[in-house]
Amino acid sequence: MAGDGSDQRALQYEQTLMYGRYTQELGVYAKEEAARLRESGQRRSISERSRTLDLLEYDKGRCAKCRICTVRCQKFLISRVGEDWIFLILLGLVMALVSWVVDFCIAICLQAQKWMYGGLDSNVFLQYLAWVTYPVVLITFSAGFTQILAPQAVGSGIPEMKTILRGVVLKEYLTFKTFVAKVIGLTCALGSGMPLGKEGPFVHIASLCAALLSKFMSLFGGIYENESRNIEMLAAACAVGVGCCFAAPIGGVLFSIEVTSTFFAVRNYWRGFFAATFSAFIFRVLAVWNRDEETITALFKTRFRLDFPFDLQELPAFAVIGIASGFGGALFVYLNRLIVQFIRKQKTINKFLMKKRLLYPALVTLLISTLTFPPGFGQFMAGKLTQKESLVTLLDNRTWAKQGIAEEFDYIGNSQAWKHPQVNVFVTLVLFIVMRFWMSALATTIPVPCGAFMPVFVIGAAFGRLVGESMAAWFPDGIHSDGSIYPIVPGGYAVVGAAALSGAVTHTVSTAVIVFELTGQISHILPVMIAVILANAVAQSLQPSLYDSIIRIKKLPYLPELGWGHHEKYNIRVEDIMVRDVRYITLNCCYRDLHNILMSIHLKTLALVESAESMILLGSIERAQLQSLLSQQLSRSRRMEYIRERAATEKKHLSVVSNNDSDDGRQRASQEVRFQISTEESTFSPTRPASQKPLKPALKRSSVVERPTELPTSPHDHSGIALKSLFCSSPDAEALEDDGDVEDDMTLREITEWEERQLDEQVNFSTCKIDPAPFQLVERTSLHKTHTIFSLLGLDHAYVTSIGRLIGVVSLKELRKAIEGSVTVKGVKVRPPLASFRDSGTSSSENEATELHKLWDRHRSVSLPGDQVTSESDEKSQ
Amino acid sequence: MAGDGSDQRALQYEQTLMYGRYTQELGVYAKEEAARLRESGQRRSISERSRTLDLLEYDKGRCAKCRICTVRCQKFLISRVGEDWIFLILLGLVMALVSWVVDFCIAICLQAQKWMYGGLDSNVFLQYLAWVTYPVVLITFSAGFTQILAPQAVGSGIPEMKTILRGVVLKEYLTFKTFVAKVIGLTCALGSGMPLGKEGPFVHIASLCAALLSKFMSLFGGIYENESRNIEMLAAACAVGVGCCFAAPIGGVLFSIEVTSTFFAVRNYWRGFFAATFSAFIFRVLAVWNRDEETITALFKTRFRLDFPFDLQELPAFAVIGIASGFGGALFVYLNRLIVQFIRKQKTINKFLMKKRLLYPALVTLLISTLTFPPGFGQFMAGKLTQKESLVTLLDNRTWAKQGIAEEFDYIGNSQAWKHPQVNVFVTLVLFIVMRFWMSALATTIPVPCGAFMPVFVIGAAFGRLVGESMAAWFPDGIHSDGSIYPIVPGGYAVVGAAALSGAVTHTVSTAVIVFELTGQISHILPVMIAVILANAVAQSLQPSLYDSIIRIKKLPYLPELGWGHHEKYNIRVEDIMVRDVRYITLNCCYRDLHNILMSIHLKTLALVESAESMILLGSIERAQLQSLLSQQLSRSRRMEYIRERAATEKKHLSVVSNNDSDDGRQRASQEVRFQISTEESTFSPTRPASQKPLKPALKRSSVVERPTELPTSPHDHSGIALKSLFCSSPDAEALEDDGDVEDDMTLREITEWEERQLDEQVNFSTCKIDPAPFQLVERTSLHKTHTIFSLLGLDHAYVTSIGRLIGVVSLKELRKAIEGSVTVKGVKVRPPLASFRDSGTSSSENEATELHKLWDRHRSVSLPGDQVTSESDEKSQ
Repeated sequence: MAGDGSDQRALQYEQTLMYGRYTQELGVYAKEEAARLRESGQRRSISERSRTLDLLEYDKGRCAKCRICTVRCQKFLISRVGEDWIFLILLGLVMALVSWVVDFCIAICLQAQKWMYGGLDSNVFLQYLAWVTYPVVLITFSAGFTQILAPQAVGSGIPEMKTILRGVVLKEYLTFKTFVAKVIGLTCALGSGMPLGKEGPFVHIASLCAALLSKFMSLFGGIYENESRNIEMLAAACAVGVGCCFAAPIGGVLFSIEVTSTFFAVRNYWRGFFAATFSAFIFRVLAVWNRDEETITALFKTRFRLDFPFDLQELPAFAVIGIASGFGGALFVYLNRLIVQFIRKQKTINKFLMKKRLLYPALVTLLISTLTFPPGFGQFMAGKLTQKESLVTLLDNRTWAKQGIAEEFDYIGNSQAWKHPQVNVFVTLVLFIVMRFWMSALATTIPVPCGAFMPVFVIGAAFGRLVGESMAAWFPDGIHSDGSIYPIVPGGYAVVGAAALSGAVTHTVSTAVIVFELTGQISHILPVMIAVILANAVAQSLQPSLYDSIIRIKKLPYLPELGWGHHEKYNIRVEDIMVRDVRYITLNCCYRDLHNILMSIHLKTLALVESAESMILLGSIERAQLQSLLSQQLSRSRRMEYIRERAATEKKHLSVVSNNDSDDGRQRASQEVRFQISTEESTFSPTRPASQKPLKPALKRSSVVERPTELPTSPHDHSGIALKSLFCSSPDAEALEDDGDVEDDMTLREITEWEERQLDEQVNFSTCKIDPAPFQLVERTSLHKTHTIFSLLGLDHAYVTSIGRLIGVVSLKELRKAIEGSVTVKGVKVRPPLASFRDSGTSSSENEATELHKLWDRHRSVSLPGDQVTSESDEKSQ
Repeated sequence: MAGDGSDQRALQYEQTLMYGRYTQELGVYAKEEAARLRESGQRRSISERSRTLDLLEYDKGRCAKCRICTVRCQKFLISRVGEDWIFLILLGLVMALVSWVVDFCIAICLQAQKWMYGGLDSNVFLQYLAWVTYPVVLITFSAGFTQILAPQAVGSGIPEMKTILRGVVLKEYLTFKTFVAKVIGLTCALGSGMPLGKEGPFVHIASLCAALLSKFMSLFGGIYENESRNIEMLAAACAVGVGCCFAAPIGGVLFSIEVTSTFFAVRNYWRGFFAATFSAFIFRVLAVWNRDEETITALFKTRFRLDFPFDLQELPAFAVIGIASGFGGALFVYLNRLIVQFIRKQKTINKFLMKKRLLYPALVTLLISTLTFPPGFGQFMAGKLTQKESLVTLLDNRTWAKQGIAEEFDYIGNSQAWKHPQVNVFVTLVLFIVMRFWMSALATTIPVPCGAFMPVFVIGAAFGRLVGESMAAWFPDGIHSDGSIYPIVPGGYAVVGAAALSGAVTHTVSTAVIVFELTGQISHILPVMIAVILANAVAQSLQPSLYDSIIRIKKLPYLPELGWGHHEKYNIRVEDIMVRDVRYITLNCCYRDLHNILMSIHLKTLALVESAESMILLGSIERAQLQSLLSQQLSRSRRMEYIRERAATEKKHLSVVSNNDSDDGRQRASQEVRFQISTEESTFSPTRPASQKPLKPALKRSSVVERPTELPTSPHDHSGIALKSLFCSSPDAEALEDDGDVEDDMTLREITEWEERQLDEQVNFSTCKIDPAPFQLVERTSLHKTHTIFSLLGLDHAYVTSIGRLIGVVSLKELRKAIEGSVTVKGVKVRPPLASFRDSGTSSSENEATELHKLWDRHRSVSLPGDQVTSESDEKSQ
């Protein structure tokens, strides 16, 4: 039990690490492997003994029967259904349950508020207190809880998922703690009645769920360790998140693709559909079982007439909605960013807020809830209604504007809220739109788990309704000239407006599909599509999407998209943007050079070239690998060995041992891992004219090292074997065991001398994991193609070669600069900013590394008030 | 003016060439560039003089005013709207018009048949003659017309588009001729009333339209030459094709993505949506203008009740439809393939059919139309109805089965056809399904432009209707227990069945969306989704999709998909499937080696390694480039130069010139292109121990050659410049001009001797276009990742390297074998077929090259009866 437990724990630990790593391709994969190797090596050497103890304890723990049973069950399930199915069904089921429970809790919270508010109707002041205190307490609790448990849970989650699916590691982002914080935080935040949404957080929650489920499933063995599978599952999870949030499987899949992916693998398509459909199904079945609905229907079912949904001549009005929504969407994104930046800039406010972290959420909530207080200003903007109620009333198929003719609308139920004795319904709508607009933009900056989709959706619906009511007032008998009268349906306009505005804010087209699935009617497909496309066209030319805006604000390492039709991208070449001063290590360098390079550069990987003169790129090596090489060379065990050697020779000769001989001895001792390097012993400087010889031995050596790992029937990843061959047969591991027979009698000066000698030795790359085929580009590759390749393969950097010679390197950073540079100066054929030329490779890479470090640090702190550290650089980038 | 015109024409010509080439990435791009270079080089040298004549004639042609006006208009439009918009709008418009006109003509054709049939109701025999002759004539005409004008127009077009979007060149596939053949052929084929569809052909027609439009737009200059843009436009065109066929923009986009792409770039998403929406809009507006409809509605509008579309307890029935449709879909694909193979196998039938190419279509049509003859067997299977009428009646929201209770159905209008005085409606439906099933499978093998989507859709609807009617008969009062009675809606079942069966045949999920858009109702979303997913699950585990099946039958060079959850793919490595015996050329080889290699291998590209011993991969060279190198070395102009040299030295010395000296002289003469190779003059054999020196000069040389092409402000692609630097500054081009001063007085023996000497010289790669970064893999890359990379980048082959050393090559063929091998032996962890090991690199590559050649040849002939040449190899692959 304990052994298994420890194994399991180790696995779990690896899993925890793994969920941060959604690397997609080859090169990255190899590097990850190397990193894991090193890591597990360290762990192993540390816990070498505690492990054996664990193993002894193991037998008692779990009973054999139970294990056998589990294995059989699992085998049966795997052979019967295939693991993906089980996984996706479980994911869908869990997410449907989560969604339903969250909805249920939110509904209770909102009911409680209404009940409190309703019960105190004798005293307006008490009513106000109840109306205001309730959301403030909930939001403050949500912010505090999230802050304490997992600050990663703050915000929408879609920008981070986008980054993770891009192949970037975000630490602590997919853990159980975050899951709990997100679910509870979201429930409280939405229960407060603030204009916040649950879509974005649900994408994150679904991903968390998938990650945790995957971890759980991997207890049963199987292929759950495979990371390319993990990324597929994570993409499916995003679809499930949207799908079960709106009971919109198709829209969910499409929206999640549009929002999170750059290139989508069609073979993953079915996963998303399968899981999202199952999830949406269960979500709606739960509603039926709970007697909320008679049968499975849409979430916000509309009842527009089918036979004549709209007239051809109404299309211009729909187009107007689309274009206006485009501007509105861009404005929303701009406003949201402005608020964040304003708060960051104001040093005094900021300092104050930093100290009292929960003050900002409380103040914002207070402001918003004061304004929506129904007996106060709220009466002019239907402040009484919850978000859901507003949407239902806005999508109503009856006309509100009084026409005096046929349909006298009696404002039953919730629709009453829109009617004010003194004020026209148009004024109410306008006030609602305007107030809700800035309120939503403000509310989404609160550091609680929350999304912006739903608030925007409601605002869009209100705007559509406004246009629709105006049209209905303008053409009381409808526009259609011949035959029967078809009055205008303002609810249809609301549908169009909702899709258009949410599409504009998120830069997606699939909101159209979400709208159809939400309303259960597809009759307005063409107006919706036209409006959404127009809104997208306008919004995309003015502002980035909300998610991209957040990515920029948070400085997540994401590659921006190429804009619409910026054709100058076809004319920029890699050679224009690459860093020419590449730092590299040569095959024949000595440990001292390695040391110097590691001290001076903070790149994650380094290029390995044949020699400084030929510059033939042989591969790339992880920085961590080099560090472990270096530390191994200077390790205590090697020094012990040296002492033992010296003692042995002293015994034999009783004469002073020359340095040269001792080196030879060491060489012999470690012969079993180092194969053929003993030919040359002199020290090389990396810049001296390279002799061509070391290349071939090195190549042969590596092939000798690689071969033993080719066990075809091994159930594990090859890393496991390579790990064994690297660390089990290594003399170091054994040296640890029997270093008791000699004493460490070297003085500090002797040690330093010994280390200096060690540093002058030539580096032995045989135990080092080299990625032999890092991604290469040609100098004439266009920016457009580079962008495509980077996003396709999830690359982080690529070497630029010319007939095998390394001539430069392009990293995400250069690419981002080039793209953003040419995007800002629009219409003009610009060369990208030449900053990347002026930057030396070192400084630029240093910046990059530290930027990433900053990111992680920042991520730990609360996202909003803690961000002021980098606020200066923000303004530059925008 | 003349120069501009000639430039333009050259451009136009290049455009024509370009539309066949939809290569996506870097490596392929470089190779294409090289190919074009060579091609234009040949063209240039051949038509050097005829060209000047053309140029003189040109001036008269276009008037200057017209041109200036055009240029201004174009500039205005480009600056105002952006070219993509214009292009997509035009594409949408044209396709909507085409779709509408085709539909209109088909309707007229079908009406004519009905009219003829109706007018002859006095005599059954005459009626039969009319009923049968009409479709036979139309189909025969269609087959003949297509055959004569453009055999590429035969069939669906989706498999070919899939292949083209994968990056493969299919010749003559996107020309105007094909467009005409496809449109007219399709109209006649569908006008005959056979169970054929227009969806697949419309994908092809839209692509043709996009290609032609792009060609047309390039007359106005701009960025229409860029090929990565072309592929984006082509992907959008596929969406337009489906969108304007069904007036289903969303479903069109999704279906085209699922059917044609492996990896989809989300940034192209909007293009598809934009164009498809516009197209669908215009398509429907045309119907309104033509007074067919009152307003814009769905194509097959349904009127199911909204408030209670289906009961939760009906879901098992929907699931049954899904599973049964899965089996049915697989059976359809199998049947279709079986028919093709049967006809190919029967040598005697085949020979006969080959002679009379139009006999097969005529016979099939005769058979089908005889069976559907309404007074004959047709009365039991609603043979009177056209496809569209059948679908409309099947989707009716009334119940057919007589229940004696409330809804006594009176079979008005077309629905009469389903009622037979003696026979139950269930029998009619079953007969319809069974007969239509094999008829459709048979009809789609006719060599006319036709698709299988619509027939399958109708069969699915009929099957759904059958289940629905059975349910309605079983539960006359509906299943719902408490409260009001909700009778079962068989039309809803028909919708589910249609989506499920068409989804199963095409292996797509998006048929669900198409169904919603076609019917204008989304109320059955969950049943449809569940059925479609189940159908896909079943069908995908049994058979390839119809399009993949056709790809296999036609042996198009396409990479099959990895199946659902075949996890053994994660365990196969590249080293298991790669060809280890790679043929390569070394940097220091002589022309003789080049000659030998070119004679023995037929690969399209060859690897260039540093030396046979070091095997360091430096790049890859197009075969064509090597051929031109070789032919240049042995060209007449060089020989002329040699003669001139010899004459000159003879004049000076009057002594016999030694071979060595003449070589020196030649060297001096061409000094301006060859920079630093004169250090070594001895002949190398490719296998002798390589001296390391040539590498560096070669590298430097190349960089010197590359640099002059770095003109940053050049408006053209760099290929244009490289072309000029290659052909304009080359001494050959000038030699052509002034070779009149010496006479070719060499005897044949002298020439042979001279050539032998030339062959022993070392190859000068400086004028040769080398791709310096061909795609490399590591030997431990998994099959899964290899597949991903190949499909992502549209690769054709990749070199396997180990720290810079070339150790193998993997081509599409090996990959395909490995995937198909492991797919057939399911569930078991298999090593891929070892055939790829046993194959020598030569023979396998030869096969590949000839396979491609065969493909083109076959493509020229009619697809079905002409295919028997390769029928033997077919059976092996399946």
